[in-house]
Amino acid sequence: MLYVIGLGLSDETDITVKGLEAVKKSERVYLEAYTSILTVGKEKLEDYYGKEVIVADREMVESESDAILANADQVDVSFLVVGDPYGATTHTDLVIRARELGIDVQVIHNASIMNAVGACGLQLYNFGQTISIVFFTDTWRPDSFYDRIKENADLGLHTLCLLDIKVKEQSIENMARGRKIYEPPRYMTVNQAVEQLLEIEDNRDSGVCTKDHLAIGCARIGTATQQIVAGTLQELLDVDFGGPLHSLVLIGKRMHEMEAIFIRDYAVNKESFDAVVKEKYQ
Amino acid sequence: MLYVIGLGLSDETDITVKGLEAVKKSERVYLEAYTSILTVGKEKLEDYYGKEVIVADREMVESESDAILANADQVDVSFLVVGDPYGATTHTDLVIRARELGIDVQVIHNASIMNAVGACGLQLYNFGQTISIVFFTDTWRPDSFYDRIKENADLGLHTLCLLDIKVKEQSIENMARGRKIYEPPRYMTVNQAVEQLLEIEDNRDSGVCTKDHLAIGCARIGTATQQIVAGTLQELLDVDFGGPLHSLVLIGKRMHEMEAIFIRDYAVNKESFDAVVKEKYQ
Repeated sequence: MLYVIGLGLSDETDITVKGLEAVKKSERVYLEAYTSILTVGKEKLEDYYGKEVIVADREMVESESDAILANADQVDVSFLVVGDPYGATTHTDLVIRARELGIDVQVIHNASIMNAVGACGLQLYNFGQTISIVFFTDTWRPDSFYDRIKENADLGLHTLCLLDIKVKEQSIENMARGRKIYEPPRYMTVNQAVEQLLEIEDNRDSGVCTKDHLAIGCARIGTATQQIVAGTLQELLDVDFGGPLHSLVLIGKRMHEMEAIFIRDYAVNKESFDAVVKEKYQ
Repeated sequence: MLYVIGLGLSDETDITVKGLEAVKKSERVYLEAYTSILTVGKEKLEDYYGKEVIVADREMVESESDAILANADQVDVSFLVVGDPYGATTHTDLVIRARELGIDVQVIHNASIMNAVGACGLQLYNFGQTISIVFFTDTWRPDSFYDRIKENADLGLHTLCLLDIKVKEQSIENMARGRKIYEPPRYMTVNQAVEQLLEIEDNRDSGVCTKDHLAIGCARIGTATQQIVAGTLQELLDVDFGGPLHSLVLIGKRMHEMEAIFIRDYAVNKESFDAVVKEKYQ
């Protein structure tokens, strides 16, 4: 049996009891370690489970899935995913491959940012499609998600923006020379995301994410140090959100009064929050 | 401390280890029992936790929240919610009330249908807003969610439809006579939801959920008896999905090839699935 197990959002105790039982009876345990992170590392998980955890990077999951699945038709193998297993496309590939090989698959769900973002006070059914913002480089400044944000905004819906994570990336020079030297991991901050959004707004100019647009910066949702701050994009530029992971929610015009009451508690500046709500959200 | 704890989707072992620890140290444990259900009842949970579980119905949560919160500034109180705590507005109310009373609140997240629906093979970021379909009565046949489905469909996005649950409802006669006699619980099936959608489509006639529209019926997602069936709405009318809870996903035109491959495995009829995909989804 292949168990695909969500670990939730925070530490080793966010696994479900069912998930922990599956891990304990598994012969091999893999940890997918490139689409998200917990607040604890592999060593902590190994202590907690009482067994070895094999870190699976993107290369391994995408091109060596058969090694992960080896003899999983006869023994139990666990594949651990931060959040919920169906958060990223890459895990779907693994499930499809297991099916092709005739291996039984059991998915053990958990919280992910896709539902835990409800903690910010916005109702989940008022969100439109979710988008991902990737790090700009000098030569690559993708902005196609701007159209998605606009589609949501035109309907008055909120947009959850997932922020880029770069783990085990090579510099162009190291890649060219075939040197397996990796850059330190990078996690996009709310501030960086806002900066990029404002740059795109300057270019596209459809009024979708202007400086006075209301948004909510979220850091470490579901952990003990969770931080939620609401304000205009301009205000959020200067808020220190601390360590990763961060995400950003753009508030849609259909914001309900009840949502506004909940969120006001998180406002950088309650007066400016009230003023923007009054002027633009009613 | 008030702990608001998600129980996940299936049975007593879907609670997180962190959630279970909080329950064990709580002086009182409430179970919200009207927006969703587990596959096990209160007695099973009591056995598992080794303590009494107080069932909180809608009336109690909405009008007696102060009783639930009594002395929670001094002792630990757990409020259990099937799925994730932020799935329903009513729990937000409880958190707001606790804040007003100066009670610390810790939310312990879990899977909910909002993210676990990824199990059907559609990518979560391709979903638009989520809607709820309520039971039609002879005199009340609400269809405002049709506009929401249309908004999603116009963008090519998928729509998750949550289906109605009627727990502890009184008949009009019993209500009029003030008799606290309750009807048996009712859970909307995929078939009933499809029937209502087709009736609304007949009236509104915007081509949003016609008989040949592709959809996925989901039953008991995240449980051992999970059932996922894809087909046209016409085909899903006659599929037996078994016991609750059910939900329905309307597939948007932007369906990715990868999504289609995954879903094809669930098709009632692979030939008709392929034909509709070819005709309407490319």
